[in-house]
Amino acid sequence: MARLLEELPPRVALVEIARDFHARGWMSGTAGNLSVRVDDEHFWITASGKPKGRLDEDDFLLVRVKDGAVAEKRRATDKPSAETSIHAALYRLFPEARAALHGHSVEGVFAARRAKKGAKAFRLPPVEMLKGFDVWQQNPKVDLPLFENTLDVAKIAKEIEARFRKAPPAVTALMLRDHGPTVWGASLQEAYNRFEILDFLLRVAARV
Amino acid sequence: MARLLEELPPRVALVEIARDFHARGWMSGTAGNLSVRVDDEHFWITASGKPKGRLDEDDFLLVRVKDGAVAEKRRATDKPSAETSIHAALYRLFPEARAALHGHSVEGVFAARRAKKGAKAFRLPPVEMLKGFDVWQQNPKVDLPLFENTLDVAKIAKEIEARFRKAPPAVTALMLRDHGPTVWGASLQEAYNRFEILDFLLRVAARV
Amino acid sequence: MARLLEELPPRVALVEIARDFHARGWMSGTAGNLSVRVDDEHFWITASGKPKGRLDEDDFLLVRVKDGAVAEKRRATDKPSAETSIHAALYRLFPEARAALHGHSVEGVFAARRAKKGAKAFRLPPVEMLKGFDVWQQNPKVDLPLFENTLDVAKIAKEIEARFRKAPPAVTALMLRDHGPTVWGASLQEAYNRFEILDFLLRVAARV
Amino acid sequence: MARLLEELPPRVALVEIARDFHARGWMSGTAGNLSVRVDDEHFWITASGKPKGRLDEDDFLLVRVKDGAVAEKRRATDKPSAETSIHAALYRLFPEARAALHGHSVEGVFAARRAKKGAKAFRLPPVEMLKGFDVWQQNPKVDLPLFENTLDVAKIAKEIEARFRKAPPAVTALMLRDHGPTVWGASLQEAYNRFEILDFLLRVAARV
Repeated sequence: MARLLEELPPRVALVEIARDFHARGWMSGTAGNLSVRVDDEHFWITASGKPKGRLDEDDFLLVRVKDGAVAEKRRATDKPSAETSIHAALYRLFPEARAALHGHSVEGVFAARRAKKGAKAFRLPPVEMLKGFDVWQQNPKVDLPLFENTLDVAKIAKEIEARFRKAPPAVTALMLRDHGPTVWGASLQEAYNRFEILDFLLRVAARV
Repeated sequence: MARLLEELPPRVALVEIARDFHARGWMSGTAGNLSVRVDDEHFWITASGKPKGRLDEDDFLLVRVKDGAVAEKRRATDKPSAETSIHAALYRLFPEARAALHGHSVEGVFAARRAKKGAKAFRLPPVEMLKGFDVWQQNPKVDLPLFENTLDVAKIAKEIEARFRKAPPAVTALMLRDHGPTVWGASLQEAYNRFEILDFLLRVAARV
Repeated sequence: MARLLEELPPRVALVEIARDFHARGWMSGTAGNLSVRVDDEHFWITASGKPKGRLDEDDFLLVRVKDGAVAEKRRATDKPSAETSIHAALYRLFPEARAALHGHSVEGVFAARRAKKGAKAFRLPPVEMLKGFDVWQQNPKVDLPLFENTLDVAKIAKEIEARFRKAPPAVTALMLRDHGPTVWGASLQEAYNRFEILDFLLRVAARV
Repeated sequence: MARLLEELPPRVALVEIARDFHARGWMSGTAGNLSVRVDDEHFWITASGKPKGRLDEDDFLLVRVKDGAVAEKRRATDKPSAETSIHAALYRLFPEARAALHGHSVEGVFAARRAKKGAKAFRLPPVEMLKGFDVWQQNPKVDLPLFENTLDVAKIAKEIEARFRKAPPAVTALMLRDHGPTVWGASLQEAYNRFEILDFLLRVAARV
């Protein structure tokens, strides 16, 4: 095992994360998508429709941050994840973001359902674990941005970009209602750590 | 690890699935049964009474789709799974089906109990994960067929065949009340993926 | 991996079961005890106070069925499990029993709490999984024997023996209130399978 | 696998425990901290901010029991865990303590929330598992010390030391509200066993 995920080649690291997240129930079937930025203008993202417990290094496409267009593919028939536009929006919004991880979770679905229909965010529980998002407050009042799910993913991406341009979120994460969380970070390891942390917070929130 | 389950010899793939499902609590003791179709007229199915975490390639019998009769056995004393008639019915109903997987789950039991006694189906939760069953609707209204459990398995098989001849289900899956889900697919990998997906949906449904 | 637990030397099989049960949360700390009968008059049982995820073949004592006296030890300072008297009682009661497995589980604690104080049994849920205990009834009404927990283990053992002499239980299992289940079987594999099955049933019972 | 954790070099044992606790969800992200005493005056503790599933032997600092000052570091930029003062307090309080383990758990958060705001302790459930803390009572009435969480960790450490100087706790464990449990023991193995045991007890307490 590498000491940190950064020590692995980027796509190898994503293969390892995908197998791990699949085993934890966050990438059932072919659900979820993972990306890593390789330079200011490009990121690798998982191909659409692949079982996430069984990826290899060629199950990725290189995509442009600017417009989500495919710059390189390893297998001729592969298409980028249906949610590529969300990853591209995040990389445009946050130049320091190097990785973005999206999964589905039962607990996340229930945590989000506690928010009213149309709510733009919901409060994360004020537990110690919040420090993992660099929240250092005595009685933390931190909201997780919430977006309604829709078949039109490009519309979600636009809404994310519009809302975060106005006001960046307090945590490097967002939730899609009836769907699942997306977490980004300044490194693969940070994104991975914070995905775990958000899962902990959502488990608490689902039961409060 | 093979890239996809199709790349393994069919019975080797079923041994791997059985070990995986056992570890996840879907095949406790000797519960559950798995099959893979080898040609239009035959499928391999697990032998009755074997602990599913410890199968080998010879713990299967070759069975005729037409009538469920045993065409070949690897061990003289083995009998086919008690639920072979259900698998045969599914292969007769759905010529494109190549694999059928049946397990038991606590969450499935509870999800089904939310349906009234005698109900023929129950609504799956309208979450993103439904796309794994090729459901692309904005506010999906999808029902999982539900069948009452009985000691007379052949009767269940007949009811499945009769009901699905009239109207095929919206998803390639069904639920036996107080028992567990059965999922089929056009490939081993698809059946495996969708079993996971249905488990996610049942976990949500059990708690709604 | 051996095909069946019987194919391993008996203490090696118990080491494997202990590691498995520990990983599943049924043998936290040094909790639980496992035994296998080697002939009509003797059984091997786990030594007291050992962490169950880290046993080796010498962490067992050979004990007499007749009176629970130690016939052989592998390490001079070892003592037999504090619950040896219960295992001995079960082997006296059931000559066909070859293995007995005892663990603790959170779900078991809650399932048993649904029974009234002083109740001698509680109803197992009428689910398909009961067939793993050779229960073949249309609407099964099967009770799990329940015993009050006490510091005086010999007293529990006597009560088990007295009650089962009068009327053997419908399943090869019993529950100690606020403690955990004990399951026995005609083989190591059968006891292992049925421990899993009982866990499934207790998970359903805990939530009904 | 070593037979017991004591048979490993101390930091190797902590690396193994960290990987294990991370896999169980008790050390999400970089949460939690682990220490082992090497002599009366010093202990090794995990460095701050490391992902606990990926530690190596150099991710530790040697710290003085007397005042928590760093005596040795393996990597120049490392800092000791933010909760080092709590570990130091425990080693000053309990000369027999050789290891202290601190994690976070969803169930622990909920168990503690059942206690009133400001409560100094809460009752552990009277289940057999308590024997793992050397509690041998017929109807055990055992309280787990509870401390309010605050950004000022040194203040928590002082409160622990002051309260336990007056009256040592009935169990070698404490709980930080909205945070997680800390468990210590006379050996690494004992601390590890009891962390598991406390988790079992907190799972029961969270649901009572």
